[in-house]
Amino acid sequence: MSDGCPIYKTNRDAIAVTKTIADIDTPTVLIDIDRVEANLRRAQAHAEQEGYALRPHTKTHKLPQFAKLAIELGAVGITVQKLGEAEVMADAGVTDIFLPYNIIGPLKLARLKALNARITLSVTADSSDSVAGYAATFTADQALTVLVECDSGGGRCGVQTGAQALELARQIIAAPGLRFGGLMTYPPLHGVAKSNAWLSDAIALFDTAGIAVPRVSSGNSPDMWEPAAAPVTERRPGTYIYFDRIEVREKVATLDDCALTVLATVVSRPTATRVVLDTGSKSLSSDLVGMDGYGLVMGTELVIKTLSEEHGVIEMPTPSDWPRIGDRLRIIPNHACVVSNLFDTVTVVSGDNVSGTLKVVGRGRVD
Amino acid sequence: MSDGCPIYKTNRDAIAVTKTIADIDTPTVLIDIDRVEANLRRAQAHAEQEGYALRPHTKTHKLPQFAKLAIELGAVGITVQKLGEAEVMADAGVTDIFLPYNIIGPLKLARLKALNARITLSVTADSSDSVAGYAATFTADQALTVLVECDSGGGRCGVQTGAQALELARQIIAAPGLRFGGLMTYPPLHGVAKSNAWLSDAIALFDTAGIAVPRVSSGNSPDMWEPAAAPVTERRPGTYIYFDRIEVREKVATLDDCALTVLATVVSRPTATRVVLDTGSKSLSSDLVGMDGYGLVMGTELVIKTLSEEHGVIEMPTPSDWPRIGDRLRIIPNHACVVSNLFDTVTVVSGDNVSGTLKVVGRGRVD
Repeated sequence: MSDGCPIYKTNRDAIAVTKTIADIDTPTVLIDIDRVEANLRRAQAHAEQEGYALRPHTKTHKLPQFAKLAIELGAVGITVQKLGEAEVMADAGVTDIFLPYNIIGPLKLARLKALNARITLSVTADSSDSVAGYAATFTADQALTVLVECDSGGGRCGVQTGAQALELARQIIAAPGLRFGGLMTYPPLHGVAKSNAWLSDAIALFDTAGIAVPRVSSGNSPDMWEPAAAPVTERRPGTYIYFDRIEVREKVATLDDCALTVLATVVSRPTATRVVLDTGSKSLSSDLVGMDGYGLVMGTELVIKTLSEEHGVIEMPTPSDWPRIGDRLRIIPNHACVVSNLFDTVTVVSGDNVSGTLKVVGRGRVD
Repeated sequence: MSDGCPIYKTNRDAIAVTKTIADIDTPTVLIDIDRVEANLRRAQAHAEQEGYALRPHTKTHKLPQFAKLAIELGAVGITVQKLGEAEVMADAGVTDIFLPYNIIGPLKLARLKALNARITLSVTADSSDSVAGYAATFTADQALTVLVECDSGGGRCGVQTGAQALELARQIIAAPGLRFGGLMTYPPLHGVAKSNAWLSDAIALFDTAGIAVPRVSSGNSPDMWEPAAAPVTERRPGTYIYFDRIEVREKVATLDDCALTVLATVVSRPTATRVVLDTGSKSLSSDLVGMDGYGLVMGTELVIKTLSEEHGVIEMPTPSDWPRIGDRLRIIPNHACVVSNLFDTVTVVSGDNVSGTLKVVGRGRVD
C-alpha cells in the first residue's frame, strides 16, 4: 500500500491499536482493511492487464474513504446509484462520478444541475422523457454528459434495440445542454457475451450513422474476471471490494477474500442444538438470493437458518455445548451491499485489531 | 382524537398545509396519520373490552411520538427489541419500557443499569447465564425486573419447559438486585391456544411452588383480535399501527387500514408491459414472507415482481401506456417494520396533504 492511502495509514500508524474485536459490542459490521486493499488491488491489476477502465460501484460500501482509495489505486472515477449518494461523494472530494440512472422530476433535476456544476458527472437516459428533462435543465456552458442505457438482456431499465439507442443519442446530440457520452448496460448474470453482442450490434448502427461512441460501460462483480471483450471500455463492479457469500457461490472469490463480516453475540441456547444470535434481518437483511440460510459463520459450515428482525437462529447438526451464551461469532452475509445500508457506522479491523470506525455517510441517501 | 395528541394537533392545526404529496420527492415513506390514529384506537378499545394490558411493540415505527400517542390512548407502556431503542425512547420521555431480550455482556449491562435508574424497565432471561449477568450488575436499591422468556412453540428464544421457567424464576428471586416480573413468550403464528396452554401448565407449577406470576406477556399483530384468554395479562402487537400486506393476508386488517406506503416514481418504461420504479430493496426490503411480489401498488392489483437495490419492476398484465414516466405510485410493502428501518425520516400525511416529517430516531439502534 502506498503512503498516500489514508485508511491504511490510519490503520497502521496514526492510531495506536488499543482495542481488539473482543472489546467492542455487537452487532457490529467489521471491515477487514487488508482484504479490502487486496480486493481493490487485484481488480485494478486485472483492469490494467485487460485494458479497460475500472469505475467501481460504491453502493456496496457508501464510504468516500474507500471511493478515494480505489481512485488512488487507478480507478477512473466511481459509480453511484442515487443522486443523494453522488452528492455525498462529491462533498467528500470525489471529482468524477457516474450515476447510471434516469433522473426524473424538477426537484432532482435542480440538484443534478448543481452537482454537474462542481464535478465531472455523467448520467443515463433510456427514454425521450428522460432526455427532455435533461435538455430543459442544462445549458451549453455546463453541459451534462448523458449515456444511453441499454437493456442487453438484464430485463430492468434500458432501450430494447440498437435503433432506439441511436434515436436517443440523436436527441441527446441535438440538445445544446447535453453531450452524448456513450452506451451503458447492466449485463445479465453470466450473460456478458450476449450483452456484448447486443452492444456491438448497436455500435455498428452508430458507425453507419457516423456517431462516435465515447464510452461503453458495462460490468458487475460476478463476471469481473472475464477477459477484455469489445466493445466494452469501462466496467462497474461493486461488491468485489468486500465480496460475500453470493460472490463465493459464483466462484469470483473465496471465503478468505470476504472483507465484511457482522460480529454477533450468542444471546440464547434454548436447546442443545439451537443457537440464537443478536443478528436478525435488521443486521443481515433478508436477502436469500437462492442461498442456503442468511449468512455463514466464519470458519465453520454453520449457517443462520431462520431469522426475525433481531434474532438469527442456527441449528447445530448435533447437540453441542459450543457456542456458549456470550460467545462471539463473525457472520459472512449473503449480500454485503445491503448490510452496509443497515448500519450507520462500520468498524475497520486488521486481523483482530480495531483501527476505528467509519461513518457510512452514503447510507440512507434514498433519493 | 383528544386535544392532547401532539402529532394530530400538528397535523390539523399548528402547521398550515402548504404541501401535498405531489410536492415531495421520492422514494419517501408516507404515514397516513388518520389510519395510524384509527389503528391505535381500535387496538386500545379491544384491549379494554377484553381486559388485557396493551404494551405496543415500537420496533415497527421507532418513533417516540407514536409511542407516546399509544400511551396517551391507554397503553400501559411500550415494548422495544434493542437496548439502543429503549435508550432513545427513554430520552424522549417514555417512562415504562419492556425490553424482552437477553442482555448479554458488560458493555450492555452497564447501559442497562443506567437506563433502569431512570425509567420503569423490565427485561427477560431464558438462561442462568443471563440471570447471572443481571444479578452481578443490579442491587436492591435499584432492582431490575426480569421476566422469564418461554418458548411456547415459536422456536426462537425461551426455556423449553415449565420446570425450567420455575427454576429460573427461583434464581431471579434469590438475587438481591432482581425482581421476578412474570412470564413472557412470543407465540407461534396462529398458535395462541397452544401457547396459552403451555403458559397455563407452567403457571400451575408456580402456584404449587407458591410463587406469584405478576405479568404474563404474549401477543403479536396477526393474532391481535383474538379474545381474552387466560393466563395472558398483557399483549405486545407492533405492526398493527401501520399494518401491511402480510397482515392483510392474515386477515387482521384490510388494505384500507394500511397506514405506511412508500411513494415511488416511475423512472423507466422499457416496454409496453414493463414499469420500473425508483423503489428497490433499499426502500422496500427483500422480505417476501411467502407473498407474491415485494409490494402492492395502492389502488390496483399490480405488484412489484422483481427488485434490485434501487429498482422495482412491475410487469403489467397487458400492454399499457399507464403509468407513464414521472407518474407517482404508492406502494404498500409486505412488511412495514423493516421499511421503517431503511429510512431516516418519514413524511406524515392526511389524505394528500403533507403535515411534516418525523426523524426515525430509533432507526439504526442496532445494539
